[in-house]
Amino acid sequence: MIATAEIQVIPLGVGVSVRREVERARQLLMESGLRVELHAYGTNVEGELTQILAAIAKVHEVLHQEGVVRLTSAIKIGTRTDKAPSLAGKG
Amino acid sequence: MIATAEIQVIPLGVGVSVRREVERARQLLMESGLRVELHAYGTNVEGELTQILAAIAKVHEVLHQEGVVRLTSAIKIGTRTDKAPSLAGKG
Amino acid sequence: MIATAEIQVIPLGVGVSVRREVERARQLLMESGLRVELHAYGTNVEGELTQILAAIAKVHEVLHQEGVVRLTSAIKIGTRTDKAPSLAGKG
Amino acid sequence: MIATAEIQVIPLGVGVSVRREVERARQLLMESGLRVELHAYGTNVEGELTQILAAIAKVHEVLHQEGVVRLTSAIKIGTRTDKAPSLAGKG
Repeated sequence: MIATAEIQVIPLGVGVSVRREVERARQLLMESGLRVELHAYGTNVEGELTQILAAIAKVHEVLHQEGVVRLTSAIKIGTRTDKAPSLAGKG
Repeated sequence: MIATAEIQVIPLGVGVSVRREVERARQLLMESGLRVELHAYGTNVEGELTQILAAIAKVHEVLHQEGVVRLTSAIKIGTRTDKAPSLAGKG
Repeated sequence: MIATAEIQVIPLGVGVSVRREVERARQLLMESGLRVELHAYGTNVEGELTQILAAIAKVHEVLHQEGVVRLTSAIKIGTRTDKAPSLAGKG
Repeated sequence: MIATAEIQVIPLGVGVSVRREVERARQLLMESGLRVELHAYGTNVEGELTQILAAIAKVHEVLHQEGVVRLTSAIKIGTRTDKAPSLAGKG
């Protein structure tokens, strides 16, 4: 099932600036094989739902392995059966 | 990895009332084996992250199979390495 | 216009534990005169939309005045014209 | 207080396609005087917090006046005291 999603990863306990961790999360999403679009409040992705969910899990796993103690993610997922959902054609 | 999450499922194209689809999503989450807490803006769950992500995928799949044409979900996921995250002890 | 909302306030730069700031935000929402319901992923409120938005602004203002350097809030707002929205009767 | 925000407006009861209502919401945000950036999962804005909150209220009010029966919005708000928050420089 093809889906679109928005993924925002917020690290807690790394200080006021979260730039390094946000960039690392984006790098992992860009390496996931999903179509990726960056914006100021998250990363939009398009691809197989199972692949999207696996990428989300990987971001949490890798950031924790690299020392981030606490993470909260805000995610939106869109699916539809009348046509393939895409980042280009919302509506 | 144990996680907590909040899952809100919004069906589009079913009319102004979304009660039936929201209840069906909650039923699927309650059958998932995760710890579940209902509230007015979603369902909070606690359990293995992979199990939570599988439950989210199942909700989309089953609701589409049962005729809902379009779904958008809003999800928050929390993980931490200093202690087990739980719905009881936020902070 | 009566609305319901979910408000989650995330302080950045206060360390791994955000309990103190989350409790302060909840206290401010409880003092706002809105109907309030607490849960693990935020505070649900019900009342006039303008009053809800004013309460959100106050939470940001007061927490900053009290020393929190950075805040990100995740908010959901629900309004409808067919009947009064309420935290009790979603759907 | 300058803030950044992400605003996603979801109309319920208008059918599977929500394009017309989403475009109307974006038009209202673009007319608000705020700096605006569109993406597939919402509209990012930058400006005075009170102006942002007023724009959110106006979107709900106008869409209801124009016939949309039910609306749910997903909003993220960011503020900080160490420097001016901006859509350009997240982190």
